[in-house]
Amino acid sequence: MGVSPRIAIDAMGGDEGLAVMLDGVALARRQNDGLRFLLVGDREQIEAGLKTHPNLAAASEIVHADEVIGGNDKPSQAIRRARTTSMGLAIAAVKDGSADAAVSSGNTGALMAMAKIALRTMKGIDRPALAALLPTLGDNDVVMLDLGANTECDSENLVQFAVMGAAYARIVMALKRPRVRLLNIGVEELKGTDEVKEAAAQLRAAKPLAMQFDGFIEADRLGRGEADVIVSDGFTGNIALKSIEGTARFITDLLRRAFTSSLRSKAGFALSRPAFRMLKVHLDPNNHNGAVFLGLNGIIVKSHGGADAQGVANAIGVAAKLARDDISRRIAEDLENFRAHTRTVPAAAQ
Amino acid sequence: MGVSPRIAIDAMGGDEGLAVMLDGVALARRQNDGLRFLLVGDREQIEAGLKTHPNLAAASEIVHADEVIGGNDKPSQAIRRARTTSMGLAIAAVKDGSADAAVSSGNTGALMAMAKIALRTMKGIDRPALAALLPTLGDNDVVMLDLGANTECDSENLVQFAVMGAAYARIVMALKRPRVRLLNIGVEELKGTDEVKEAAAQLRAAKPLAMQFDGFIEADRLGRGEADVIVSDGFTGNIALKSIEGTARFITDLLRRAFTSSLRSKAGFALSRPAFRMLKVHLDPNNHNGAVFLGLNGIIVKSHGGADAQGVANAIGVAAKLARDDISRRIAEDLENFRAHTRTVPAAAQ
Repeated sequence: MGVSPRIAIDAMGGDEGLAVMLDGVALARRQNDGLRFLLVGDREQIEAGLKTHPNLAAASEIVHADEVIGGNDKPSQAIRRARTTSMGLAIAAVKDGSADAAVSSGNTGALMAMAKIALRTMKGIDRPALAALLPTLGDNDVVMLDLGANTECDSENLVQFAVMGAAYARIVMALKRPRVRLLNIGVEELKGTDEVKEAAAQLRAAKPLAMQFDGFIEADRLGRGEADVIVSDGFTGNIALKSIEGTARFITDLLRRAFTSSLRSKAGFALSRPAFRMLKVHLDPNNHNGAVFLGLNGIIVKSHGGADAQGVANAIGVAAKLARDDISRRIAEDLENFRAHTRTVPAAAQ
Repeated sequence: MGVSPRIAIDAMGGDEGLAVMLDGVALARRQNDGLRFLLVGDREQIEAGLKTHPNLAAASEIVHADEVIGGNDKPSQAIRRARTTSMGLAIAAVKDGSADAAVSSGNTGALMAMAKIALRTMKGIDRPALAALLPTLGDNDVVMLDLGANTECDSENLVQFAVMGAAYARIVMALKRPRVRLLNIGVEELKGTDEVKEAAAQLRAAKPLAMQFDGFIEADRLGRGEADVIVSDGFTGNIALKSIEGTARFITDLLRRAFTSSLRSKAGFALSRPAFRMLKVHLDPNNHNGAVFLGLNGIIVKSHGGADAQGVANAIGVAAKLARDDISRRIAEDLENFRAHTRTVPAAAQ
C-alpha cells in the first residue's frame, strides 16, 4: 500500500446517481493529495461525466461494468453477479490488488455479502463488523460497531469488535488510546447478557492495550463524548443507531410543525436560521459519512445511499486514511498484543 | 374492584420529595372522580403535608412506614425491607386487597423485584414486562414493552408481551384492536433473531385476536404512529428507549448551544418561544408518565423519579384506568382466546 492509495469507486451505486458520485470523487481528489481512482461502472456514462472533471479524469482509470446492484436486490442474489456489477468489480479490484480500498453508496446487505465472499475475514477475526461514526457533544465523534453485520454475537466476537473499533478510532480520529465501552442496559458488572458480561471480563483482564476499556455504557449516553468506541452485537447496534436516527427525524419534524404554526414563529425561525444551520451541520449524516466493514482482508467503505458530493468525499477520505495507515496490519498487531496479554485468562483462551 | 378505585401511593419515593408527590395526588383526585388513596410513608410528614390539601386528606388514609428505598439501593437488598419501607407497604396493600393499584416514583429495579415477590406472575404469564407510553407523530402514543424487566426472552415471552401490551393499549388509549409489531432490524420475515422470528410466526398464526399483528418494525419508525404496541425483549427495549431519550436530550442541548451563540439567535429564540413550548410539551416525559409492570397479580405503576405534580397525576390516572377496567382479567381472557386460536400450531403449544 503506497502513500498515494488508489480507491475503487462503485460509480453506479447509490440513490443520487453517477453525477453526484463523480462530483464527490472530484472533491475527494482536491481534499486528499495524490489520490488515484478506479471508476467502476458504465464506461460511456462515466466518460461523459468526466468531461466536466478533467483533473479527475487524469487521476482515474475506468473499469467497465454492465450491471448495477439495485437497492432492493437481495444479498443472496447479488453475490451471483459479482463479475458483472459495478459493486462486485469494485470489490474485486481490492482483492486483486489493483485498488487499496473500495467505496460504494449501494445496497449495504449486498455489499457486505459480496465483500465477505471475495475478501474473507482476517486471520484471528471470526466475523467482520460494520462500524460508523456518530456525532457527540464531546471533542470528537464516536465509533459504533457492530451496526448490523451480525445478528447474534458471542463474547469473543465482541472482544474482537473492541480491538477492531479501537484500531479504527486510532486511525480515523488520530487518538493514541481510544476509550472503549460495551453498550449495555446498566453500568454495574452484574447487568446485561452473559455475552456482554464475559466480553467485559476479558477486556478488563487484558490491560495494557492500545485502548482504555472503561466498562459499560447505557444507550442514553452514546452522544455525550464519554467514549471513543462503543461495542455491541449487530442487533443491538442497529436498534440503537436507528432509534437515534428516528428520534432526530422525529424532533426535526416536530420543530418544522412548530415553526410553521404561526406567523410569529415563522419570523422567529427566519431570525434563527444561523442557529438551525449549526444544528443541521452537526446532525447532517454527510458529515459523518463512511461506514466501514472491519475485519476483512481489504478495505470496504459504505457511503450513505443518499450522500451528497461532500458526503461521498468524506467516505473516500475515510477509505484513504484506512489504506494509508494500513488498518489491517494495525488490527492484526493489536489482536496479537491482546492475545499475549490474556494468555493466562482461561475464558479468553481458545 | 369497584368503580372508585383506591390507589396506594409510595409517598416517599422519587427525587422530588413528598410535597410534589402530594401535589400530584391532589391533582389526580381532582382529575379523576371518586378516587381514594392510601398514602404510605412517614405519618408525621404526610400529616403535615396534608394540611394544605384538605380535600385530599378527606379522601385518604395514611399507612405509616419507617423507611424509604433509596435510588441506589440494590433490588436484592430492597426485597428484605418489604415490611418496613413505603414502597414495600404500598405493594403489600395491593396484595392484601386494601388497594386496587400502587404507584411509586422510587427505584425501578427495587419496585420490580418487590412486586414480583409479593404479587407473583399471573397464571399463563411466565414473566412480567415493563410497559410505557411514548409520543408519536400519529394520533395516539405508542405502548412499548419490555423496557428492561427481562434481559433475555424466548418467543413465548414475546408472544405474551404482545397480548399484554395490546390489553394495555385497549384500556389506556381506548383502542378496539391495537396494531402490534415486533421490534426488529428489518421488516422481512427472514430478519432478526430466532426468538423474534418464532414469535412473529405464532402471532401471525393466531388471528383473529383482540389485536392486529402487523409484523416487524425497525427502530427508526417507532415514533411515526405506525403501531400502537411495539414488543421486544427487555435488553432491546431498554436500548431503544434510552437511545431515544439520549438523542432528544442531545438535540435539545445542541439547540441550546446554537440559540445562545449570538445575539441574533437569542432574539430568534425569544420570538420562537411558543414553538419551543409546543416541542417541549410533546417531548415532556411528564405527559407520558406511568410505566406499568404487566403480568403480575396486581397493578403496579412506576412514575418517573423526577416527575412533577402533573406527571404524578398522570401516572395515578393510568393506575386508576387499569384498575377500573380490570386489566388482569382482560389479559387472562386475551391469553385464553389466543391459546384457543393457536391450539393447532405446534410451535405455540406448550
